[in-house]
Amino acid sequence: MNKHLEKEDVRIDELDQKIIAFFQRDGRSSYTEIAEELGITVGTVRNRVQRLIENKIMKIVGVVDPFKTGMESVSMFGLKVQLNKLDEVVQKLVKIPEVRFVAAATGAFDLYVQIITSSNKELYRIMKEELSEIDGILSTDSSMILELHKQSYDWGVNLP
Amino acid sequence: MNKHLEKEDVRIDELDQKIIAFFQRDGRSSYTEIAEELGITVGTVRNRVQRLIENKIMKIVGVVDPFKTGMESVSMFGLKVQLNKLDEVVQKLVKIPEVRFVAAATGAFDLYVQIITSSNKELYRIMKEELSEIDGILSTDSSMILELHKQSYDWGVNLP
Amino acid sequence: MNKHLEKEDVRIDELDQKIIAFFQRDGRSSYTEIAEELGITVGTVRNRVQRLIENKIMKIVGVVDPFKTGMESVSMFGLKVQLNKLDEVVQKLVKIPEVRFVAAATGAFDLYVQIITSSNKELYRIMKEELSEIDGILSTDSSMILELHKQSYDWGVNLP
Amino acid sequence: MNKHLEKEDVRIDELDQKIIAFFQRDGRSSYTEIAEELGITVGTVRNRVQRLIENKIMKIVGVVDPFKTGMESVSMFGLKVQLNKLDEVVQKLVKIPEVRFVAAATGAFDLYVQIITSSNKELYRIMKEELSEIDGILSTDSSMILELHKQSYDWGVNLP
Amino acid sequence: MNKHLEKEDVRIDELDQKIIAFFQRDGRSSYTEIAEELGITVGTVRNRVQRLIENKIMKIVGVVDPFKTGMESVSMFGLKVQLNKLDEVVQKLVKIPEVRFVAAATGAFDLYVQIITSSNKELYRIMKEELSEIDGILSTDSSMILELHKQSYDWGVNLP
Amino acid sequence: MNKHLEKEDVRIDELDQKIIAFFQRDGRSSYTEIAEELGITVGTVRNRVQRLIENKIMKIVGVVDPFKTGMESVSMFGLKVQLNKLDEVVQKLVKIPEVRFVAAATGAFDLYVQIITSSNKELYRIMKEELSEIDGILSTDSSMILELHKQSYDWGVNLP
Amino acid sequence: MNKHLEKEDVRIDELDQKIIAFFQRDGRSSYTEIAEELGITVGTVRNRVQRLIENKIMKIVGVVDPFKTGMESVSMFGLKVQLNKLDEVVQKLVKIPEVRFVAAATGAFDLYVQIITSSNKELYRIMKEELSEIDGILSTDSSMILELHKQSYDWGVNLP
Amino acid sequence: MNKHLEKEDVRIDELDQKIIAFFQRDGRSSYTEIAEELGITVGTVRNRVQRLIENKIMKIVGVVDPFKTGMESVSMFGLKVQLNKLDEVVQKLVKIPEVRFVAAATGAFDLYVQIITSSNKELYRIMKEELSEIDGILSTDSSMILELHKQSYDWGVNLP
Repeated sequence: MNKHLEKEDVRIDELDQKIIAFFQRDGRSSYTEIAEELGITVGTVRNRVQRLIENKIMKIVGVVDPFKTGMESVSMFGLKVQLNKLDEVVQKLVKIPEVRFVAAATGAFDLYVQIITSSNKELYRIMKEELSEIDGILSTDSSMILELHKQSYDWGVNLP
Repeated sequence: MNKHLEKEDVRIDELDQKIIAFFQRDGRSSYTEIAEELGITVGTVRNRVQRLIENKIMKIVGVVDPFKTGMESVSMFGLKVQLNKLDEVVQKLVKIPEVRFVAAATGAFDLYVQIITSSNKELYRIMKEELSEIDGILSTDSSMILELHKQSYDWGVNLP
Repeated sequence: MNKHLEKEDVRIDELDQKIIAFFQRDGRSSYTEIAEELGITVGTVRNRVQRLIENKIMKIVGVVDPFKTGMESVSMFGLKVQLNKLDEVVQKLVKIPEVRFVAAATGAFDLYVQIITSSNKELYRIMKEELSEIDGILSTDSSMILELHKQSYDWGVNLP
Repeated sequence: MNKHLEKEDVRIDELDQKIIAFFQRDGRSSYTEIAEELGITVGTVRNRVQRLIENKIMKIVGVVDPFKTGMESVSMFGLKVQLNKLDEVVQKLVKIPEVRFVAAATGAFDLYVQIITSSNKELYRIMKEELSEIDGILSTDSSMILELHKQSYDWGVNLP
Repeated sequence: MNKHLEKEDVRIDELDQKIIAFFQRDGRSSYTEIAEELGITVGTVRNRVQRLIENKIMKIVGVVDPFKTGMESVSMFGLKVQLNKLDEVVQKLVKIPEVRFVAAATGAFDLYVQIITSSNKELYRIMKEELSEIDGILSTDSSMILELHKQSYDWGVNLP
Repeated sequence: MNKHLEKEDVRIDELDQKIIAFFQRDGRSSYTEIAEELGITVGTVRNRVQRLIENKIMKIVGVVDPFKTGMESVSMFGLKVQLNKLDEVVQKLVKIPEVRFVAAATGAFDLYVQIITSSNKELYRIMKEELSEIDGILSTDSSMILELHKQSYDWGVNLP
Repeated sequence: MNKHLEKEDVRIDELDQKIIAFFQRDGRSSYTEIAEELGITVGTVRNRVQRLIENKIMKIVGVVDPFKTGMESVSMFGLKVQLNKLDEVVQKLVKIPEVRFVAAATGAFDLYVQIITSSNKELYRIMKEELSEIDGILSTDSSMILELHKQSYDWGVNLP
Repeated sequence: MNKHLEKEDVRIDELDQKIIAFFQRDGRSSYTEIAEELGITVGTVRNRVQRLIENKIMKIVGVVDPFKTGMESVSMFGLKVQLNKLDEVVQKLVKIPEVRFVAAATGAFDLYVQIITSSNKELYRIMKEELSEIDGILSTDSSMILELHKQSYDWGVNLP
C-alpha cells in the first residue's frame, strides 16, 4: 500500500461523538442520563467512555483559570532548537511542572511552550535555573499573556 | 488605598486547592471519596465544588485530543490588531467555533489564536471567509502544530 | 457525517501509481512498453492516462531550466495580503505571465510567488507596473534565486 | 577579455524555442505534427529535442498535483546554513526523496527547500530524523502550503 | 559657518562636573561639605546647582524601585509610528502618567516607551483605552521587564 | 500556604507614599516642610526616609541629561544570551561604567542594555573591546536614541 | 528575437577599461602619461574619457570622508514603500540634499537610503520634516554607521 | 579634560570647504581656475589639496556605474558577527576585491557589506568560497540592488 493510506485509523463513530459531546458540556454528566437521551444502555455508555479514556481520545478533568487562582504569570515561549536534540529537549521540558503545554510546530519556532507561574520573578527563576539546563535550546522568544479571552476544551469533535 | 493593593481578591483556600487537585487527576472523582480522604462532609465537597464552578475558577470537562479525532489541522495564529478595535476583534474571534483559544499578549503580536479544523483546506476557508471579515486585523502570522507533546489541565494550582 | 470524513476522495489506485511512475521518469514513455511491463493492455494504459490528465492529477509537460535559457532573474516573493482581498489578489497574480508559481501558505507570508524574468531590470519593471496595480498587497519581501540545486516533478506519488 | 562577457553561452535559437513551446503545451506532442507546423523535417525535430534534453535545457515529465494524490503536507522551508558547509548541506538535502526542491537564494535564508509528504506527522519525522542529521544547518523556518494557485512548467522561454 | 560647528554649545565646565558628581552619589549632599571639599564658597555651589537645574542639565529627585513598591508590571514598548504624526504621538504619550519614558530612536522602532503599572491587567487597560486612542501609532511590540539589574542615574558625566 | 501568597512583602504604607511624593517632585525637599505639611514630626520623616533608602526602595540622586552634557551617543541594545550564562553576562555588563541600564525581559531579547558614551566612536570601541569579551552573548541588536522626550523618576508610586 | 538578448548594449572595450583603471587609481592622472603608457595618442585618451563621462559610465569627483569633515551622523535606512508610489517616493528622496544614496532592492525593504548629517539631532529633524512629507513610505528601519572600513570607487571594472 | 571634548580635531576650514566643493562638482577642475575664483594663489590651492588628500579627507577618483559596465549583480549584505572577531572579519572582508564597501553599524546587523560582481553565479561563488572562509561570521542576510537612483560623492561638506 502507498504511504498516504497508512494513516493511523481513528475509530470513533457517531455514537462516540455524541457521548463525547455530553462531557464537553459537563464533565460530570451522569451515564444514566446520557443512556436515556441516546436510547442506549448505561453499560454501553460506560464501555464507550472507558475505551475513549484508555485510548487517550478523551480525558475528563478539572480545568482551572490561572488568573483566578493566583498564577498571574502566564507566558508563551517560542523556542528554536537544534533539530538533532529536539526529542531530548521535549523530554526535559515536559518534566518541568510549570511547563503546561509543549507543541512542535512549523514557522519561526520549533517548539511552542506555555509556562504558568505565580509571578514574573518565578518565571525568571525557571528560565535561569530550568530552561538554561536544557542542552539544545538555541534561543527563546517569549510573550506574557495579558488576558485569556477564550479557552475551549471541546477540541476535535463537531457534532451534526 | 494605593493601586497595587486593589487586586481582585482570589478567595481560594487550602481546602479548595485540595479539592481541585482531585478533579485535576480525575474529573469524575466521587464526592464521597474526596470527603473521606480529606476528613470533611460530602456536603462541604459539594458546596465547594459548586462555588468553584459558579465563580468560573474551575470547570470539569471532557478534553479531546484533536489529532486522534480527525481534526488534523491545529494552527496557532499571531495577530497584529488595530488597538482601538481590539475588543471588537476579540468578540468576533471567540464566536468562530473553530477558534478554540484567544489570548491577548505582549510581544510581536497583540493576540494569539488557535484554530482547529479537520484539514488545511478548511483552515484556508476560515482564513478567507471568517478572519477576512473581521475589521481591525492588520496582519496574521501562523504556524501549524505538528505534534502536541504536553497539554496539562491543572493550571493554576500547586499543592504542598 | 462528521467533517473529517468528508475529504474529497482521491481515487488513484496502485495501477495509476505505477503508470504515473513511468511518466515521472520519462514523459515520452510509450504506452506499449508500459502495457507490456505492467502486463495490461495498451487500451488500459491509454484510458488511465487520459483520466489522470482530465482530472488534473497528472500533466505531461516540457519543463525548462530558466538559467539555461536566458531567464536569469528567478525570484521568490513573500506577500502579505489583506485577507478580504486574497482571492482577487490571487486572480490577478496568476494572470501575469512572468508569475510562474502562486501558493497560499501559513507563516509570515500569506502568499508565495515566483517571478521569472530575463533580467533584474525586467523584474523591477514588473514590480512597479504590475504588482503595484494589485489592490490588497500590503507588503512584499523578495529573494533572488542564485542556483537551482533540485527541482523534481514527481510530486505526490511514492511507489512501493 | 573582461569578466562580464565570459558568461556560459546559451545556444538555444528561435527554432529551439518554437519546439520547446509545443512541449510546454503538451509533453506528448508528436514529432510529425511539430515538423509539419514548423515546416521542418521530423529528423530535425528529433535531433533538436535530443540535444535540449541531453544539455538539460528541457525535460519532459509527468507532473503530479500533490494535493490530488494524497500528499497533503506540502511545506516550504527557509534554511540558514553555515556557509562553509553549504555544498555539503545541499548534497545531503537533494538525496532525501521527500525534498522536491532546493535552491540557494539571497535574503534572510541561504536555501529554500520544499518537502512533500503524506501527512504532517511524516513531515515531523523527516525534520527529526533526516534534517537533524545534516551538519551545517543553523536554523529552519517553515510554512505549510495551503493551496497551489498556479504552477507553470514553461519556465524560461517566452515566444514572440 | 558650516553646519557641524553650529551645535548647541554645552557650557558645563570642570567645576560643574565635580559638583554634579556629589549629587550623583547622594542627592542630599550638603552645600557646605561640597564647598569645603572643592575649596570654593557655599554661594558658588548654590549658584552652580541653581544654574544646572534651571537649564535642565541636572535634576535632583527621589527615584523609586518599581518592583519594591508594588508596580510589578514594567514593560518596554517599541512603536512604529506614521512619521508625519510623530510629534503628536509623542505629545500624547508623555501625558499618560503610567508612561515613564519616551525616546525617539533609530532601528526597527520609531519610539521606545516604558509603561509601569501595578498589574498586567492595568497595562492591558492602558493599551486598550489610552494607546488605542493615539492616532498615528502603526504597531506596537512589547516586552515585560523581569528584573532590573542596573539603573544608574549618573548619566552624562565622567569625572577624571 | 500556596505560592501566590508568599510574595516578598512590600511594607510601604500610605505615609511612606506621601513622603516619597515630596522627593519625587524635589529631591532636596526639607524634612521640616514635609513634617509640617503632613502633620508629623521631623524625626518621623527622617526615620522613614532612612528606612526607604536602606531598603533600596528609594534613592535620592542628581540625574543628568546626557544630551546636555556632551554624552551624545545614547544607545539601547537588545541582547540574546545563552540562558545558562545569563547571570555571568549580567555581572559583567553592570561593571562597565558606560552601561547605565541592564534589565532582563520577555520578548525577542533576553536583556535590554543602555550604553551612553561621548561619541559613536567610543560606543564602537566598547562593543569591540568590552562586549566582545563577555562570553555568552549570542547576538546584539542596537538602536541609537535620537531624542529623550520623557524620563520620569517617580516610578512605582501613585498617590491618591 | 527573444528577450534575454535584448539587454542594453554596453560598449566599453578593453581600451576603455584600461583608461578607466588609471582614473580609479588617481582621478587627476594626466592624459599624456596615460597615452604614453598605453601607446596611444593624447587625443584618443581625451575622446574616450569624454565619451565615458557623457554616457555616465564614469564620473571623476572628489570624494570626502564624512567622519573627517564633521558629518558624524551617517545612517542607512531601509524603507517599505507602497509599490504604486515607488517612483514618486524615489523622486522626492533624491531631491533631499542629505540623502546621498537611493537604491531599489530585493529583500525586506523596497529602498535603501543613506542620509548624512552633522548630528543625530539634524537626522531626526530630516525624519520628522522631510521623510514624513513623502506620501507612500509605509515604514522605515534605520542603522547608524559607526565606522567606514572600506569604500571603493572602482565599481564595475576588473582589469586583467 | 572630560571625554566629550577630546574628539579628534577636524581642521578643515572654510577655504578647505570651498576648494573641496570644486572637486565635488568636477574632479578635474584646474588649480588655476580655482585660485582665480577664490582669489588665492595656485600654490595655496595645491598645498591645500595635497594636505586634504594626505590626511585622507578627500580622494579624487573615477567612479564607475556598475550597471553600465557589465557588473550586473550589485548586492548588499547584512552580517551578524561574533563581536570578538569583528576586527578580523573586517580585515578579511576588505581584502576581497568584489567587496566594495564595509561599514560597522548599529541595528540588526553588525556589518553592512556591498559586493559587486558580473553575475549572480559569481556572487554565489564568492559566498561559498570567500565569505565561507571567514571565521566569525554568524549569519548573512542579502538584498540584490535592482536600480541605483542616487549616488552622490559629495559626502561630508555643505557649503554656504
